Amino acid sequence: MMEKIIKIFDTTLRDGEQSPGCSMNLKEKIEMAQQLERMNVDIIEAGFAAASPGDLHSIQEVSKSVRSCTVASLARAHRGDIDKAWESLKYAVHPRIHVFIATSPLHMEYKLKMTEEEVVKATGEMVAYAKSKCEDIEFSAEDATRSNIDFIVRVFDTAIKAGATTINIPDTVGYTTPDEYYSFITAIIEKCPALKTVDISVHCHNDLGLGVANSIAAIKAGASQIECTVNGIGERAGNAALEEIVMALKVRKDILNADTKIDTKQIFRTSRLLSRITGIKVQPNKAVVGDNAFSHESGIHQHGVLNNRETYEIMTPESIGLDTNKLVLGKHSGRHAFNEKLIHLGYDDLSQEELDEVFKKFKELADKKKDVYDKDIDALVLKQKMDVPQIYELEKYVTNSGNIITSTTTVAIRKDNEVFEEVATGEGPIYASFKAIEKVLGREMELEDFSLSSVTEGEDALGDAVVKLREDGRVYTGRGLSTDIIESSIIAYINAVNKMLYSKISRGEN
Amino acid sequence: MMEKIIKIFDTTLRDGEQSPGCSMNLKEKIEMAQQLERMNVDIIEAGFAAASPGDLHSIQEVSKSVRSCTVASLARAHRGDIDKAWESLKYAVHPRIHVFIATSPLHMEYKLKMTEEEVVKATGEMVAYAKSKCEDIEFSAEDATRSNIDFIVRVFDTAIKAGATTINIPDTVGYTTPDEYYSFITAIIEKCPALKTVDISVHCHNDLGLGVANSIAAIKAGASQIECTVNGIGERAGNAALEEIVMALKVRKDILNADTKIDTKQIFRTSRLLSRITGIKVQPNKAVVGDNAFSHESGIHQHGVLNNRETYEIMTPESIGLDTNKLVLGKHSGRHAFNEKLIHLGYDDLSQEELDEVFKKFKELADKKKDVYDKDIDALVLKQKMDVPQIYELEKYVTNSGNIITSTTTVAIRKDNEVFEEVATGEGPIYASFKAIEKVLGREMELEDFSLSSVTEGEDALGDAVVKLREDGRVYTGRGLSTDIIESSIIAYINAVNKMLYSKISRGEN
Repeated sequence: MMEKIIKIFDTTLRDGEQSPGCSMNLKEKIEMAQQLERMNVDIIEAGFAAASPGDLHSIQEVSKSVRSCTVASLARAHRGDIDKAWESLKYAVHPRIHVFIATSPLHMEYKLKMTEEEVVKATGEMVAYAKSKCEDIEFSAEDATRSNIDFIVRVFDTAIKAGATTINIPDTVGYTTPDEYYSFITAIIEKCPALKTVDISVHCHNDLGLGVANSIAAIKAGASQIECTVNGIGERAGNAALEEIVMALKVRKDILNADTKIDTKQIFRTSRLLSRITGIKVQPNKAVVGDNAFSHESGIHQHGVLNNRETYEIMTPESIGLDTNKLVLGKHSGRHAFNEKLIHLGYDDLSQEELDEVFKKFKELADKKKDVYDKDIDALVLKQKMDVPQIYELEKYVTNSGNIITSTTTVAIRKDNEVFEEVATGEGPIYASFKAIEKVLGREMELEDFSLSSVTEGEDALGDAVVKLREDGRVYTGRGLSTDIIESSIIAYINAVNKMLYSKISRGEN
Repeated sequence: MMEKIIKIFDTTLRDGEQSPGCSMNLKEKIEMAQQLERMNVDIIEAGFAAASPGDLHSIQEVSKSVRSCTVASLARAHRGDIDKAWESLKYAVHPRIHVFIATSPLHMEYKLKMTEEEVVKATGEMVAYAKSKCEDIEFSAEDATRSNIDFIVRVFDTAIKAGATTINIPDTVGYTTPDEYYSFITAIIEKCPALKTVDISVHCHNDLGLGVANSIAAIKAGASQIECTVNGIGERAGNAALEEIVMALKVRKDILNADTKIDTKQIFRTSRLLSRITGIKVQPNKAVVGDNAFSHESGIHQHGVLNNRETYEIMTPESIGLDTNKLVLGKHSGRHAFNEKLIHLGYDDLSQEELDEVFKKFKELADKKKDVYDKDIDALVLKQKMDVPQIYELEKYVTNSGNIITSTTTVAIRKDNEVFEEVATGEGPIYASFKAIEKVLGREMELEDFSLSSVTEGEDALGDAVVKLREDGRVYTGRGLSTDIIESSIIAYINAVNKMLYSKISRGEN
C-alpha cells in the first residue's frame, strides 16, 4: 500500500504566538515563516487578522515573504473578521481563509450565547461569504471533541455545501484520547460522506500529554492534514509538536503508512530559531529536539550504543539536522573558515553587509573566548538577523558591587548621536543597572522576567541574557550576548526597549 | 463497572536520576523519596545498587526514610547485582528486587552477546536466586517492544515459574505506538496465561512523544502497573510523565475506567521540588505542571474562561495543588503570619532550628525586597532543607566591572573559621569571581553549565543561580539565591563545591 502524504499546517505564528511569553515582532515572524518554508510545511497559519492592525499587517508581510507555502489567516464567523482576513492575505500566492465557530454546548451557551440553529446559519453564511473572496477555505468547529456528533455533522455538511475545502475537527481543550478520537472521527465521516470530498484536518492540544498520539489516531481515521506547532508551543500546555508528529511518521512508516513532505534536516534549526526568538528553551528531555534526546548517560546504555547505535537510538541526530561534527573556531580562524562554517550551519542567505558585521562580532568574541562553538556562531548570526533598529545603544558602563557595599552602576547610552549618562544604586548590580537605564529613558518599566544562561560550557562562555518587559499587556523580549553577564543584561534590557519602540512603529502607534 | 486501580511505580530516582544533569545527592534523594511517599506512589525505584557503593548506600537511606511505599532496587540478571540489590534493601519495610535482561535480537546480539537459550536460562536462574532472598520480584524484558513475541512469552513463563510477581514489558527506546503496543500486550497475555496471576507493568519512553498514550493503551490491554517519572525526566527524551498519566486517568475516568491512589494535590509541589534539586525547569508549555498549563492568553480564551472556566479548562489548578490564592508577605509580616504561610505551603515537617533559620532568611529578604511571594518562600525553605554542610562559606566579595575596564573580583571565603581572600580578573565579573574562588580553593574546576533566573517578577526579584561543576564524569549542581546576581552566582559556585565534597564523603572517598 502506498503511503499517504499528510499535509502539515503549522500554527506556530498563530496559536503558538498567542501563548504567554511567545509574542513575536514582525521581523521575527518573517524569519520564522521563511524557516518554516525552508522546512517545507504545507500551510503556515500566520495570525488572526482581527486581533489588531499590527497582526493584520504582519500576516501581509509574511504573505509577501513566502512563495511555496499556503498562508492561512484565522477569522471568527463574522463578516468583519473575514474581511480583515482577506485583506491580510492580499499579497499571498496561495491564500487560505480559516473560518471557525464553536460547536460544543458549553461554548455555544457560555461564550457565543447562540443556539444550534444560529450556529448552523452563521456557518453557512460566513463560509459562503469567505468563499466569495477566496477559493481555499478551511472551516473549524471549535471544541469539536466536546460537541454532539449529529449536530457537528450538520455543521460540517453546511460548511462543505457553502464551499469549505478543508474541515478541521479540533480537540481545542486537549480532552480526548486516541481511541475516542479515532471513533469520533470515523463516526463523523460515516455520517457525513461529503467529508470524503475535502481535506480532513485535526488540531490537538496537549493538556493530558496526548496531542501527538491523538493526531496519529486521526490520521488512521482518515485525516489528511495535521495542525501543529514547533516545539509544541501554544495555548496552555500547547499544541501537538510538529517535530514529534513528523518523526513518529518517519520512524514508524512501517505501521503508520503515512509521511509528510517535511525536510527533517531542518527540524533542529527551526526549533532553535523559535527558542531564540521567544527566549523560551525546550526542556532537555523534550522529545526529538531536547538537549538530551540523543545523549546516553548511564553506563549500560553507553556500552550498548558503542556496540551498535540502534540498541538505544531509533533515529539519528543527523536526521533532524543535529550536527555532531563540531569543528571549533578560534582567534586564528580566518574569513574563509568562518564563511564555510556559516554555510555548513545553513546560513546561506546573509547579505554582504550582514556577513561583514557577523565576522566582526566573531573576531571580537574570539579575542575573549578561546574556543568558538557552533552554538556561539548561531547566537551571533541570529542576533544579527533579527536585530531591530538600535534607537538606544549601550556606549559604556561601569559597575561596582559587593555584599558589603551598595551596588552602583553608571550607564552611558547613545541615542541619535547624543550620549546620555546616568548613575544609580540598587540591590545588586542588575537592579542598579536597570535603574540607571530607566533614568536615561526618563521612565520606569515593568520587568516581567529576567534570565541568563551560558551558550556553551566553560568560564569564558557567552552569557545569553533574556529580559522581558511588559507594557499595555504586551511583552517584549530583549536578548543580549556578552562574555560579561552584566553587559549582556544591560544590552538585553536596551534591546527589549528598542523592540518595544520598533513594535509601536510597526503598529503605527509612534 | 468498577474502575481499576493502577499501581504507580515511580522511577525518578533511578531512570530519572541517571539522565544528564539530573544526578542527586543523598539528601536530595531522601527529600524526593519522602515527597513521593506524601504523594502516595505505590513503588519507588530508588536506584541501581551495582552502579557504585554510593548508589547502594543511597538506596539503603531511602529505604529507611519511607514506610508505606515499596522500595525497588534494580539488578541485571547477575548474581552480584542481585546480592547488591538485596543488600541495598535491607532496611526497607516493603522491599522489591527488580531483575532485568534484554530480549530483543539487537540487544542480545550487540550488548549481551548471548543466545536466546542463554537469556532464558539466566532469567530462570536469576529470578529464582532473587526470589530466594525477597518475596516481591519484578522481572523486566528490556527492549520488549522490539523482541520476538514467542520468545518473550517463553522468557515471561520462565520468570513467573521462578517466582516473579510483576512482569514488566518496557518500551525501552520509545519506539512503539498505542495501537501496536495494545496488540502486542494483548497477544502476549493470550499466549502466556500465567501473566494473569501477576501484575503486568509497562515502562514507556517518550522518544516519539507517545509515552503517555502508550501507557494508557497498555492499561486497556491489561497492565496494572505504570512506570513513570516526575516531569517525565529520564534517559534521552525521558519517561512517560507521572503527572500526565495520573491526570489523564483522573480527567477521563469516564472512558478509561481506571484510577490511581495518587494524591493529585501533591503533584505541583513534587514537580517543583524536582526542578529545584536538578536545576532543570519544566518548559512553560509542559502538560499539567508547566507555567502556562493553566493560563489563558488570547482575548477569545479569556472571555470564555471568565464566563465559565470549563470552556477552556478540563481540570482545575487546585486539583494539582497549584494555589491561586497568593497572599504576599513583606517586611512587616511577623512570625505568626510566616508560620501560617509555611503550613499553607505544605512545610509542616520543619524542625525548630530550621524554622528559626528560614525565618531569619525571610526577614533579611524582606528588607531588600518589597513583596515576598510564595515562590520566594519555597526557594528559601527548599534551600534550607537541602543544604549540605557548608565546608566553604562566602564571607564577602567586591566586584568592579564594565566594558571599558577589566573586571576584578575580590572574594573572601571562610573555611573552619579561617578566612581566605583572593583577587582575580577576567572577562566579566562572573569569570573574575569564579577565578578568585578557584584561587582560594587552590584548584581549577570544570564549569559544565551556568544559568540564572529570577524567582518572581520585578527588578528586586531574587536571582536564582545554578552552577554545574563536573569532576570525574560526575556533575554537581549548586544553587545560590540573592537579590544580587553576582552574589547568587558566587554562592552557587561555592554550593556546588560543597556538594562535591559532601558527595565524596558520602561515597567514602574523603
